[in-house]
Amino acid sequence: MELTLDKLHDFARGAAFLGTGGGGDPYVGRLILQQQLAGGKRVTLIDPADLGDEDLVVPVANMGAPTVLIERFPNGPAAVAAVRKIEELLGRKAAAIMPIEAGGVNATLPAVVGALMDLPVVDADGMGRAFPELQMTTFSIYGVPGSPVVIKDEHGNEVVVQAVDDNTAEWLARVVCMRMGGKAEITLYPMSGHDAKTKSVPRTISLAMDIGRVISDARSAHDDPFTALTGFFGAADPARFCEVLFDGKVADLLRETTRGFAIGKLMLQHIDGSGEPMEIVFQNEFLSARIGDHMLATAPDLICILDRETAEPITTEGLRYGQRVKVIGVSVPPVMRTPEALAVWGPRVFGVDRDYVPIEEIRHPG
Amino acid sequence: MELTLDKLHDFARGAAFLGTGGGGDPYVGRLILQQQLAGGKRVTLIDPADLGDEDLVVPVANMGAPTVLIERFPNGPAAVAAVRKIEELLGRKAAAIMPIEAGGVNATLPAVVGALMDLPVVDADGMGRAFPELQMTTFSIYGVPGSPVVIKDEHGNEVVVQAVDDNTAEWLARVVCMRMGGKAEITLYPMSGHDAKTKSVPRTISLAMDIGRVISDARSAHDDPFTALTGFFGAADPARFCEVLFDGKVADLLRETTRGFAIGKLMLQHIDGSGEPMEIVFQNEFLSARIGDHMLATAPDLICILDRETAEPITTEGLRYGQRVKVIGVSVPPVMRTPEALAVWGPRVFGVDRDYVPIEEIRHPG
Repeated sequence: MELTLDKLHDFARGAAFLGTGGGGDPYVGRLILQQQLAGGKRVTLIDPADLGDEDLVVPVANMGAPTVLIERFPNGPAAVAAVRKIEELLGRKAAAIMPIEAGGVNATLPAVVGALMDLPVVDADGMGRAFPELQMTTFSIYGVPGSPVVIKDEHGNEVVVQAVDDNTAEWLARVVCMRMGGKAEITLYPMSGHDAKTKSVPRTISLAMDIGRVISDARSAHDDPFTALTGFFGAADPARFCEVLFDGKVADLLRETTRGFAIGKLMLQHIDGSGEPMEIVFQNEFLSARIGDHMLATAPDLICILDRETAEPITTEGLRYGQRVKVIGVSVPPVMRTPEALAVWGPRVFGVDRDYVPIEEIRHPG
Repeated sequence: MELTLDKLHDFARGAAFLGTGGGGDPYVGRLILQQQLAGGKRVTLIDPADLGDEDLVVPVANMGAPTVLIERFPNGPAAVAAVRKIEELLGRKAAAIMPIEAGGVNATLPAVVGALMDLPVVDADGMGRAFPELQMTTFSIYGVPGSPVVIKDEHGNEVVVQAVDDNTAEWLARVVCMRMGGKAEITLYPMSGHDAKTKSVPRTISLAMDIGRVISDARSAHDDPFTALTGFFGAADPARFCEVLFDGKVADLLRETTRGFAIGKLMLQHIDGSGEPMEIVFQNEFLSARIGDHMLATAPDLICILDRETAEPITTEGLRYGQRVKVIGVSVPPVMRTPEALAVWGPRVFGVDRDYVPIEEIRHPG
């Protein structure tokens, strides 16, 4: 499968959807990839099942707060240099590039690197969405070490982190990224084709393209894109729960770029002014949504904020007072809901004082 | 020349003197070295002139605020692991270990590493004293790159910084050190024997031993150690200026561990309560000493605070309200006073709004 110019808008929109607020502005992600495709480069997607077991697969990402990523764009050549460094450290050539997250620019940067290096991009990722920290991946959860983490800036500075565990890798890499100006290009979790097949969330790049296309098709047909999305996820195999959780407007916004993240919370009023507001907490990504004491959804389930007319995904740094939005919740695949996975990205990790309950059970108990 | 147990007290005291407040507690430095020597290990010093031009010389240091170093001791095995990593990166074996600074534990840690690895320790350093930041070395000033900087903690975490310049190496390594708990073992400025001969401050380890011995000899003979120190530096070849700048007690102390450093200032009252107080500003090391508008000494000249009876050096983290002290100023060798060197560690670098004036010209103008 090839990722061509005509699929780019849908892909970027879908990646922003899966980004659940994080992963950077899809407009930026689209631009950097468009530049390569318009210049004649090609992006080939490879299904994880088609990888050779011994292939070296190298995930690449742009690390940083989304509030910084809109001012400092992802740098393709720096990311390529990071891949080259991993190859040098391991003494092997990469056979494929992979995203670590399916959200925002981190879905598109691997495609840019694949185009520049003439390598296929694996149609899979380690988060099935976007998450704020490097250890929050199925790779880490199911045993692929994050280190060596190669961190590059566009000035030629390079840092290699070899940590005893992935939480420490995140802890060390984050400050390096902050000192590099709040964003850096990284490679990490270099792995075998076998691990890429068995320890990733598969087909999330094609899923992003599908989500983007569902939204644009509904718009073209003057259908309701929210109904289209619910239908799309319900028809998936296996089916995924998808429902509108709130229809309202941004009434209050507290957003701070601190500790290397965009952290804060958001209050939404009902569109007709009635009832209690919804509070959404974020650390780069939208992590929990509650109305009063009632928690409607938490990570790892997707909490997406979309324009209430066009269903265009809105990112953390794109939030503005008065925006009219719908919040939708989407369940995640079983591989992301195991006890091991919830220990890494369940609600308690993000300071929510309750155990994880699948979104479909919250919405339709019993 | 061998660094033996009987020389250890003098060496540690002299290293604390050259540390000008920084470089960590000499007691800690002495203990870690004593442990090796008592266990049968030996430390051989090598004069820089005796190095082979092609030898690989590896400087090692403990990075961190002195306020942290008294709680978390330097770790010999982690420093050895950092040397091994540099050897791996360069594909060569180290022929000798070298201090980057002659102050405190950073004078003794290289001796510990030399003992553990059975390698000689070069009788020279890159600062001729202690300075707070990694780029503040004659190595950097005269063209030896600081990178790769290998940073190790005692848990097995490792970070390698390859920066485009040494200020950036310091900027990146400092936060890594902070995240490693405020101290880390590092190797940096790997260099040839030729560079070690021509781009270091020579014979600063033997100088530390001499300074320590001058103080202990004066005590044993019931002579004034301050007179002895002045005489010792005056008789050096070339002669070095040394004078008591102030005789007083600690009247006020502002000390904060922040940005990875111990930063603050100190007010000293005259011992008889008369006259204006002296203000000494520090960032790990004592960097400037003034009375009112009159600046008495600035970096790179040495500003040492010693117990007013015993002349025992007092470190930044050892400062206490009410201590009775004498402040002495000592000139530094010409290699540390060139325009290139003053651009790196002259007073303006530390926020003092004036050009460098050699201490002997301030004290005896015209």
